[in-house]
Amino acid sequence: MTGLFISFEGPEGSGKSTQITRLAARLEAAGVSHTLTREPGGTPLGSRIREIVLLDPDLDVNPLSEFLLYSASRAQLVQDVIRPCLQLGEVVICDRYADSSAAYQGAGRGLDPRLVGDVTWEVTGGLLPHITVLLDLDSAVGLGRAAARGQPDRLERADLAFHVRVRQGFLNIAANAPERFLVLDAAQSADILEQQIWQAVKATLLAMGKSAEL
Amino acid sequence: MTGLFISFEGPEGSGKSTQITRLAARLEAAGVSHTLTREPGGTPLGSRIREIVLLDPDLDVNPLSEFLLYSASRAQLVQDVIRPCLQLGEVVICDRYADSSAAYQGAGRGLDPRLVGDVTWEVTGGLLPHITVLLDLDSAVGLGRAAARGQPDRLERADLAFHVRVRQGFLNIAANAPERFLVLDAAQSADILEQQIWQAVKATLLAMGKSAEL
Repeated sequence: MTGLFISFEGPEGSGKSTQITRLAARLEAAGVSHTLTREPGGTPLGSRIREIVLLDPDLDVNPLSEFLLYSASRAQLVQDVIRPCLQLGEVVICDRYADSSAAYQGAGRGLDPRLVGDVTWEVTGGLLPHITVLLDLDSAVGLGRAAARGQPDRLERADLAFHVRVRQGFLNIAANAPERFLVLDAAQSADILEQQIWQAVKATLLAMGKSAEL
Repeated sequence: MTGLFISFEGPEGSGKSTQITRLAARLEAAGVSHTLTREPGGTPLGSRIREIVLLDPDLDVNPLSEFLLYSASRAQLVQDVIRPCLQLGEVVICDRYADSSAAYQGAGRGLDPRLVGDVTWEVTGGLLPHITVLLDLDSAVGLGRAAARGQPDRLERADLAFHVRVRQGFLNIAANAPERFLVLDAAQSADILEQQIWQAVKATLLAMGKSAEL
Protein backbone atom coordinates (compact mmCIF):
# COMPACT_ATOMS: atom_id res chain seq x y z
CA MET A 1 0.00 0.00 0.00
CA THR A 2 1.38 3.35 -1.02
CA GLY A 3 -1.01 5.71 0.77
CA LEU A 4 -0.70 7.48 4.10
CA PHE A 5 -3.11 6.59 6.90
CA ILE A 6 -3.63 9.26 9.58
CA SER A 7 -5.98 8.83 12.54
CA PHE A 8 -7.11 11.48 15.01
CA GLU A 9 -7.81 10.50 18.59
CA GLY A 10 -8.74 12.29 21.75
CA PRO A 11 -11.79 13.18 23.81
CA GLU A 12 -14.86 15.00 22.61
CA GLY A 13 -14.15 18.70 22.79
CA SER A 14 -10.46 18.30 21.95
CA GLY A 15 -10.82 19.91 18.54
CA LYS A 16 -10.47 16.83 16.33
CA SER A 17 -13.03 18.01 13.80
CA THR A 18 -11.44 21.44 13.49
CA GLN A 19 -7.98 19.99 12.99
CA ILE A 20 -9.18 17.40 10.50
CA THR A 21 -10.85 20.13 8.45
CA ARG A 22 -7.69 22.24 8.52
CA LEU A 23 -5.44 19.34 7.59
CA ALA A 24 -7.76 18.49 4.69
CA ALA A 25 -7.54 22.11 3.49
CA ARG A 26 -3.73 21.96 3.62
CA LEU A 27 -3.73 18.74 1.61
CA GLU A 28 -6.20 20.23 -0.85
CA ALA A 29 -3.97 23.27 -1.34
CA ALA A 30 -0.98 20.99 -1.87
CA GLY A 31 -2.84 18.89 -4.42
CA VAL A 32 -2.63 15.70 -2.39
CA SER A 33 -5.54 13.27 -2.90
CA HIS A 34 -7.20 12.49 0.38
CA THR A 35 -10.27 10.89 1.88
CA LEU A 36 -11.93 11.86 5.15
CA THR A 37 -13.81 9.26 7.10
CA ARG A 38 -14.82 8.48 10.64
CA GLU A 39 -15.74 5.87 13.22
CA PRO A 40 -18.28 4.69 13.80
CA GLY A 41 -19.56 5.37 10.31
CA GLY A 42 -17.95 5.89 6.95
CA THR A 43 -20.03 3.21 5.18
CA PRO A 44 -23.78 2.64 4.88
CA LEU A 45 -23.46 -0.10 7.52
CA GLY A 46 -21.31 2.12 9.72
CA SER A 47 -23.85 4.92 9.59
CA ARG A 48 -26.59 2.56 10.75
CA ILE A 49 -24.36 1.34 13.58
CA ARG A 50 -23.50 4.92 14.54
CA GLU A 51 -27.20 5.67 15.00
CA ILE A 52 -27.52 2.77 17.42
CA VAL A 53 -24.32 2.90 19.40
CA LEU A 54 -23.61 6.58 19.68
CA LEU A 55 -26.61 8.72 18.82
CA ASP A 56 -29.29 6.87 20.80
CA PRO A 57 -27.97 7.21 24.35
CA ASP A 58 -31.21 5.94 25.90
CA LEU A 59 -30.80 2.51 24.30
CA ASP A 60 -29.35 -0.01 26.77
CA VAL A 61 -26.05 -1.23 25.28
CA ASN A 62 -23.69 -3.25 27.46
CA PRO A 63 -19.92 -2.64 27.18
CA LEU A 64 -19.20 -5.81 25.23
CA SER A 65 -22.01 -5.16 22.77
CA GLU A 66 -20.78 -1.59 22.37
CA PHE A 67 -17.30 -2.81 21.51
CA LEU A 68 -18.62 -5.40 19.05
CA LEU A 69 -20.74 -2.78 17.30
CA TYR A 70 -17.76 -0.43 16.91
CA SER A 71 -15.75 -3.39 15.65
CA ALA A 72 -18.42 -4.33 13.10
CA SER A 73 -18.37 -0.76 11.77
CA ARG A 74 -14.56 -0.85 11.70
CA ALA A 75 -14.36 -4.12 9.76
CA GLN A 76 -16.58 -2.72 7.02
CA LEU A 77 -14.71 0.60 6.96
CA VAL A 78 -11.28 -1.01 6.66
CA GLN A 79 -12.45 -3.28 3.85
CA ASP A 80 -14.53 -0.81 1.85
CA VAL A 81 -12.81 2.54 2.42
CA ILE A 82 -9.45 2.60 4.17
CA ARG A 83 -7.65 -0.20 2.33
CA PRO A 84 -8.95 0.69 -1.14
CA CYS A 85 -8.02 4.38 -0.68
CA LEU A 86 -4.55 3.49 0.60
CA GLN A 87 -4.08 1.17 -2.37
CA LEU A 88 -4.87 4.13 -4.61
CA GLY A 89 -2.06 6.02 -2.90
CA GLU A 90 -4.33 8.48 -1.13
CA VAL A 91 -4.02 10.09 2.26
CA VAL A 92 -6.78 8.68 4.48
CA ILE A 93 -7.77 10.73 7.51
CA CYS A 94 -9.93 8.88 10.00
CA ASP A 95 -11.73 10.58 12.88
CA ARG A 96 -11.12 7.84 15.50
CA TYR A 97 -9.88 4.33 14.80
CA ALA A 98 -8.87 1.24 16.76
CA ASP A 99 -7.13 3.18 19.54
CA SER A 100 -10.53 4.56 20.51
CA SER A 101 -11.76 1.06 21.28
CA ALA A 102 -8.70 0.33 23.39
CA ALA A 103 -9.21 3.60 25.28
CA TYR A 104 -13.02 3.85 25.55
CA GLN A 105 -14.11 0.20 25.75
CA GLY A 106 -10.85 -1.17 27.20
CA ALA A 107 -9.55 1.43 29.66
CA GLY A 108 -12.88 3.24 30.03
CA ARG A 109 -15.45 0.45 30.22
CA GLY A 110 -13.03 -2.10 31.63
CA LEU A 111 -13.21 -4.77 28.92
CA ASP A 112 -10.39 -7.34 28.83
CA PRO A 113 -7.53 -5.75 26.83
CA ARG A 114 -6.67 -9.14 25.33
CA LEU A 115 -10.17 -9.51 23.90
CA VAL A 116 -10.13 -5.96 22.58
CA GLY A 117 -6.73 -6.56 21.01
CA ASP A 118 -7.62 -9.91 19.44
CA VAL A 119 -10.87 -8.74 17.88
CA THR A 120 -9.25 -5.52 16.69
CA TRP A 121 -6.49 -7.50 15.04
CA GLU A 122 -9.04 -9.57 13.12
CA VAL A 123 -11.11 -6.54 12.20
CA THR A 124 -8.22 -4.43 10.94
CA GLY A 125 -6.06 -7.22 9.56
CA GLY A 126 -3.31 -5.58 11.61
CA LEU A 127 -3.60 -2.28 9.72
CA LEU A 128 -2.33 0.59 11.89
CA PRO A 129 -2.16 4.28 11.04
CA HIS A 130 1.19 5.69 9.95
CA ILE A 131 0.45 8.75 12.09
CA THR A 132 -1.96 9.02 15.00
CA VAL A 133 -2.59 12.54 16.23
CA LEU A 134 -3.65 12.41 19.86
CA LEU A 135 -5.22 15.66 21.00
CA ASP A 136 -4.74 15.33 24.72
CA LEU A 137 -6.93 17.39 27.01
CA ASP A 138 -7.88 17.57 30.66
CA SER A 139 -11.01 15.43 30.96
CA ALA A 140 -13.11 18.01 32.77
CA VAL A 141 -12.25 20.65 30.18
CA GLY A 142 -13.13 18.28 27.34
CA LEU A 143 -16.47 17.35 28.87
CA GLY A 144 -17.24 21.00 29.47
CA ARG A 145 -16.53 21.87 25.83
CA ALA A 146 -18.59 18.94 24.56
CA ALA A 147 -21.50 19.81 26.85
CA ALA A 148 -21.52 23.37 25.50
CA ARG A 149 -22.26 21.95 22.03
CA GLY A 150 -25.63 20.53 23.03
CA GLN A 151 -27.15 17.05 23.11
CA PRO A 152 -24.47 14.68 24.50
CA ASP A 153 -23.95 11.29 22.83
CA ARG A 154 -23.54 7.98 24.68
CA LEU A 155 -19.87 8.50 25.48
CA GLU A 156 -20.27 12.13 26.48
CA ARG A 157 -22.91 11.08 28.98
CA ALA A 158 -20.49 8.84 30.87
CA ASP A 159 -19.10 10.28 34.10
CA LEU A 160 -15.83 12.12 34.68
CA ALA A 161 -14.07 9.10 36.19
CA PHE A 162 -14.75 7.21 32.94
CA HIS A 163 -13.24 10.03 30.88
CA VAL A 164 -10.20 10.20 33.14
CA ARG A 165 -9.61 6.47 32.54
CA VAL A 166 -10.03 6.99 28.80
CA ARG A 167 -7.49 9.82 28.77
CA GLN A 168 -4.97 7.71 30.65
CA GLY A 169 -5.70 4.84 28.28
CA PHE A 170 -4.84 7.00 25.28
CA LEU A 171 -1.63 8.23 26.91
CA ASN A 172 -0.58 4.65 27.72
CA ILE A 173 -1.19 3.51 24.14
CA ALA A 174 0.80 6.47 22.85
CA ALA A 175 3.68 5.75 25.22
CA ASN A 176 3.84 2.21 23.85
CA ALA A 177 3.80 3.28 20.19
CA PRO A 178 5.84 6.50 20.00
CA GLU A 179 6.80 5.78 16.39
CA ARG A 180 3.31 6.61 15.15
CA PHE A 181 1.90 8.91 17.85
CA LEU A 182 1.97 12.68 17.77
CA VAL A 183 0.71 13.70 21.20
CA LEU A 184 -0.35 17.35 21.32
CA ASP A 185 -1.64 19.53 24.10
CA ALA A 186 -5.14 20.33 22.88
CA ALA A 187 -5.36 23.31 25.22
CA GLN A 188 -3.18 25.20 22.73
CA SER A 189 -4.77 27.41 20.08
CA ALA A 190 -6.19 25.84 16.94
CA ASP A 191 -3.62 27.70 14.83
CA ILE A 192 -0.67 26.32 16.76
CA LEU A 193 -2.11 22.78 16.67
CA GLU A 194 -2.66 23.12 12.93
CA GLN A 195 1.00 24.05 12.43
CA GLN A 196 2.25 21.19 14.56
CA ILE A 197 0.12 18.64 12.72
CA TRP A 198 0.98 20.01 9.29
CA GLN A 199 4.71 19.91 9.99
CA ALA A 200 4.51 16.24 10.92
CA VAL A 201 2.29 15.26 7.99
CA LYS A 202 4.32 17.30 5.52
CA ALA A 203 7.57 15.69 6.66
CA THR A 204 6.07 12.25 6.17
CA LEU A 205 4.66 13.13 2.76
CA LEU A 206 8.02 14.48 1.62
CA ALA A 207 9.77 11.36 2.90
CA MET A 208 7.29 9.31 0.88
CA GLY A 209 7.85 11.47 -2.21
CA LYS A 210 4.15 12.28 -2.24
CA SER A 211 4.11 15.84 -3.53
CA ALA A 212 6.27 18.39 -5.23
CA GLU A 213 3.98 21.17 -4.00
CA LEU A 214 4.74 20.98 -0.31
CA MET B 1 -28.97 -21.26 37.79
CA THR B 2 -32.01 -23.45 38.21
CA GLY B 3 -33.78 -22.83 34.90
CA LEU B 4 -33.78 -24.84 31.69
CA PHE B 5 -32.30 -23.31 28.54
CA ILE B 6 -33.55 -24.72 25.22
CA SER B 7 -32.38 -23.46 21.83
CA PHE B 8 -33.85 -24.27 18.43
CA GLU B 9 -31.54 -24.43 15.44
CA GLY B 10 -31.92 -25.30 11.80
CA PRO B 11 -32.44 -23.66 8.43
CA GLU B 12 -35.23 -21.31 7.52
CA GLY B 13 -38.21 -23.41 6.51
CA SER B 14 -37.43 -26.18 8.98
CA GLY B 15 -40.43 -25.38 11.16
CA LYS B 16 -38.64 -23.82 14.16
CA SER B 17 -41.36 -21.24 14.78
CA THR B 18 -44.14 -23.83 14.66
CA GLN B 19 -42.34 -26.12 17.07
CA ILE B 20 -41.45 -23.30 19.44
CA THR B 21 -45.09 -22.24 19.56
CA ARG B 22 -46.19 -25.80 20.23
CA LEU B 23 -43.60 -26.34 22.94
CA ALA B 24 -44.64 -23.10 24.60
CA ALA B 25 -48.26 -24.29 24.56
CA ARG B 26 -47.25 -27.55 26.20
CA LEU B 27 -45.34 -25.69 28.90
CA GLU B 28 -48.27 -23.36 29.41
CA ALA B 29 -50.63 -26.30 29.84
CA ALA B 30 -48.23 -27.86 32.34
CA GLY B 31 -47.95 -24.63 34.30
CA VAL B 32 -44.21 -24.23 33.70
CA SER B 33 -42.98 -20.61 33.60
CA HIS B 34 -41.21 -19.94 30.34
CA THR B 35 -39.83 -17.13 28.21
CA LEU B 36 -39.61 -17.11 24.43
CA THR B 37 -36.88 -15.10 22.78
CA ARG B 38 -34.84 -15.06 19.58
CA GLU B 39 -31.65 -14.08 17.85
CA PRO B 40 -30.91 -11.59 16.59
CA GLY B 41 -33.34 -9.66 18.73
CA GLY B 42 -34.92 -10.17 22.10
CA THR B 43 -33.84 -6.80 23.51
CA PRO B 44 -34.28 -3.22 22.25
CA LEU B 45 -30.67 -3.28 21.05
CA GLY B 46 -31.14 -6.70 19.46
CA SER B 47 -34.20 -5.51 17.56
CA ARG B 48 -32.22 -2.62 16.11
CA ILE B 49 -29.42 -4.99 15.13
CA ARG B 50 -31.91 -7.38 13.56
CA GLU B 51 -33.18 -4.61 11.30
CA ILE B 52 -29.66 -4.02 10.05
CA VAL B 53 -28.17 -7.47 9.77
CA LEU B 54 -31.12 -9.57 8.69
CA LEU B 55 -34.00 -7.51 7.39
CA ASP B 56 -32.11 -5.10 5.14
CA PRO B 57 -30.53 -7.50 2.64
CA ASP B 58 -29.45 -4.69 0.29
CA LEU B 59 -27.09 -3.23 2.90
CA ASP B 60 -23.48 -4.30 2.28
CA VAL B 61 -22.36 -6.24 5.40
CA ASN B 62 -19.12 -8.21 5.24
CA PRO B 63 -18.96 -11.64 6.96
CA LEU B 64 -16.90 -10.44 9.90
CA SER B 65 -19.19 -7.45 10.52
CA GLU B 66 -22.20 -9.75 10.27
CA PHE B 67 -20.75 -12.05 12.92
CA LEU B 68 -19.89 -9.14 15.23
CA LEU B 69 -23.40 -7.73 14.91
CA TYR B 70 -24.96 -11.08 15.82
CA SER B 71 -22.51 -11.30 18.72
CA ALA B 72 -23.42 -7.82 19.96
CA SER B 73 -27.09 -8.79 19.97
CA ARG B 74 -26.23 -12.06 21.74
CA ALA B 75 -24.20 -10.36 24.49
CA GLN B 76 -27.12 -8.10 25.36
CA LEU B 77 -29.62 -10.97 25.20
CA VAL B 78 -27.60 -13.23 27.50
CA GLN B 79 -27.13 -10.46 30.05
CA ASP B 80 -30.61 -8.96 30.02
CA VAL B 81 -32.90 -11.90 29.25
CA ILE B 82 -31.43 -15.40 29.26
CA ARG B 83 -29.40 -15.31 32.49
CA PRO B 84 -32.02 -13.42 34.54
CA CYS B 85 -34.80 -15.78 33.42
CA LEU B 86 -32.71 -18.85 34.17
CA GLN B 87 -31.91 -17.44 37.58
CA LEU B 88 -35.64 -17.17 38.19
CA GLY B 89 -35.90 -20.87 37.42
CA GLU B 90 -37.77 -20.41 34.14
CA VAL B 91 -37.58 -22.37 30.93
CA VAL B 92 -35.99 -20.14 28.28
CA ILE B 93 -36.66 -21.04 24.66
CA CYS B 94 -34.42 -19.24 22.19
CA ASP B 95 -35.01 -19.25 18.43
CA ARG B 96 -31.34 -19.57 17.37
CA TYR B 97 -28.32 -19.08 19.62
CA ALA B 98 -24.54 -19.39 19.39
CA ASP B 99 -24.62 -22.54 17.23
CA SER B 100 -26.13 -20.42 14.47
CA SER B 101 -23.01 -18.26 14.37
CA ALA B 102 -20.78 -21.31 14.20
CA ALA B 103 -22.89 -22.72 11.36
CA TYR B 104 -23.81 -19.59 9.36
CA GLN B 105 -20.81 -17.33 9.87
CA GLY B 106 -18.26 -20.08 10.52
CA ALA B 107 -19.13 -23.00 8.23
CA GLY B 108 -21.26 -20.92 5.84
CA ARG B 109 -19.32 -17.67 5.42
CA GLY B 110 -15.95 -19.26 6.13
CA LEU B 111 -14.87 -17.22 9.16
CA ASP B 112 -12.05 -18.64 11.29
CA PRO B 113 -13.69 -21.10 13.75
CA ARG B 114 -11.23 -20.08 16.46
CA LEU B 115 -12.31 -16.43 16.21
CA VAL B 116 -15.98 -17.41 16.22
CA GLY B 117 -15.39 -19.64 19.24
CA ASP B 118 -13.38 -17.07 21.20
CA VAL B 119 -15.82 -14.21 20.70
CA THR B 120 -18.79 -16.47 21.39
CA TRP B 121 -17.19 -17.58 24.64
CA GLU B 122 -16.81 -13.97 25.76
CA VAL B 123 -20.29 -13.04 24.65
CA THR B 124 -22.06 -15.95 26.33
CA GLY B 125 -19.77 -16.31 29.33
CA GLY B 126 -19.67 -19.98 28.34
CA LEU B 127 -23.45 -20.40 28.75
CA LEU B 128 -24.70 -23.27 26.60
CA PRO B 129 -28.26 -24.56 26.23
CA HIS B 130 -29.22 -27.65 28.19
CA ILE B 131 -31.10 -28.88 25.11
CA THR B 132 -30.57 -27.81 21.51
CA VAL B 133 -33.22 -28.99 19.10
CA LEU B 134 -31.73 -29.17 15.61
CA LEU B 135 -34.41 -29.41 12.94
CA ASP B 136 -32.36 -30.87 10.15
CA LEU B 137 -33.63 -30.50 6.60
CA ASP B 138 -32.37 -30.91 3.07
CA SER B 139 -31.08 -27.47 2.08
CA ALA B 140 -32.97 -27.22 -1.19
CA VAL B 141 -36.22 -28.14 0.55
CA GLY B 142 -35.60 -25.56 3.28
CA LEU B 143 -34.85 -22.80 0.80
CA GLY B 144 -37.95 -23.71 -1.19
CA ARG B 145 -40.16 -23.50 1.91
CA ALA B 146 -38.60 -20.19 2.98
CA ALA B 147 -39.00 -18.72 -0.52
CA ALA B 148 -42.68 -19.63 -0.51
CA ARG B 149 -43.13 -17.35 2.54
CA GLY B 150 -42.19 -14.20 0.64
CA GLN B 151 -39.47 -11.58 0.97
CA PRO B 152 -36.21 -13.44 1.75
CA ASP B 153 -33.88 -12.07 4.43
CA ARG B 154 -30.10 -11.77 4.10
CA LEU B 155 -29.37 -15.41 4.91
CA GLU B 156 -32.18 -16.76 2.76
CA ARG B 157 -30.76 -14.87 -0.20
CA ALA B 158 -27.44 -16.72 0.00
CA ASP B 159 -26.97 -19.50 -2.55
CA LEU B 160 -27.61 -23.22 -2.16
CA ALA B 161 -23.91 -24.07 -1.69
CA PHE B 162 -23.86 -21.73 1.35
CA HIS B 163 -26.88 -23.44 2.86
CA VAL B 164 -25.38 -26.88 2.24
CA ARG B 165 -22.27 -25.78 4.19
CA VAL B 166 -24.46 -24.41 6.99
CA ARG B 167 -26.39 -27.68 7.25
CA GLN B 168 -23.18 -29.69 7.45
CA GLY B 169 -21.87 -27.20 10.02
CA PHE B 170 -24.89 -27.80 12.25
CA LEU B 171 -24.54 -31.58 11.91
CA ASN B 172 -20.85 -31.38 12.84
CA ILE B 173 -21.57 -29.29 15.92
CA ALA B 174 -24.29 -31.73 16.96
CA ALA B 175 -21.97 -34.70 16.48
CA ASN B 176 -19.46 -33.05 18.82
CA ALA B 177 -22.02 -32.27 21.53
CA PRO B 178 -24.44 -35.21 21.58
CA GLU B 179 -25.20 -34.63 25.28
CA ARG B 180 -27.26 -31.52 24.50
CA PHE B 181 -28.37 -32.02 20.88
CA LEU B 182 -31.66 -33.51 19.80
CA VAL B 183 -31.31 -33.88 16.03
CA LEU B 184 -34.66 -34.39 14.33
CA ASP B 185 -35.62 -34.98 10.73
CA ALA B 186 -37.62 -31.86 9.93
CA ALA B 187 -39.23 -33.56 6.94
CA GLN B 188 -41.48 -35.35 9.43
CA SER B 189 -44.94 -34.01 10.24
CA ALA B 190 -45.26 -31.16 12.73
CA ASP B 191 -47.28 -33.43 15.05
CA ILE B 192 -44.56 -36.06 15.18
CA LEU B 193 -41.85 -33.44 15.75
CA GLU B 194 -43.91 -31.90 18.53
CA GLN B 195 -44.15 -35.28 20.26
CA GLN B 196 -40.42 -35.96 19.94
CA ILE B 197 -39.49 -32.54 21.34
CA TRP B 198 -42.00 -32.72 24.17
CA GLN B 199 -40.80 -36.16 25.25
CA ALA B 200 -37.23 -34.86 25.54
CA VAL B 201 -38.17 -31.64 27.32
CA LYS B 202 -40.59 -33.39 29.66
CA ALA B 203 -37.98 -35.98 30.66
CA THR B 204 -35.53 -33.20 31.48
CA LEU B 205 -38.12 -31.21 33.45
CA LEU B 206 -39.05 -34.28 35.45
CA ALA B 207 -35.40 -35.02 36.16
CA MET B 208 -35.06 -31.43 37.39
CA GLY B 209 -38.17 -31.75 39.53
CA LYS B 210 -39.72 -28.84 37.67
CA SER B 211 -43.38 -29.74 37.62
CA ALA B 212 -45.88 -32.08 39.19
CA GLU B 213 -48.27 -31.52 36.28
CA LEU B 214 -46.31 -33.30 33.56
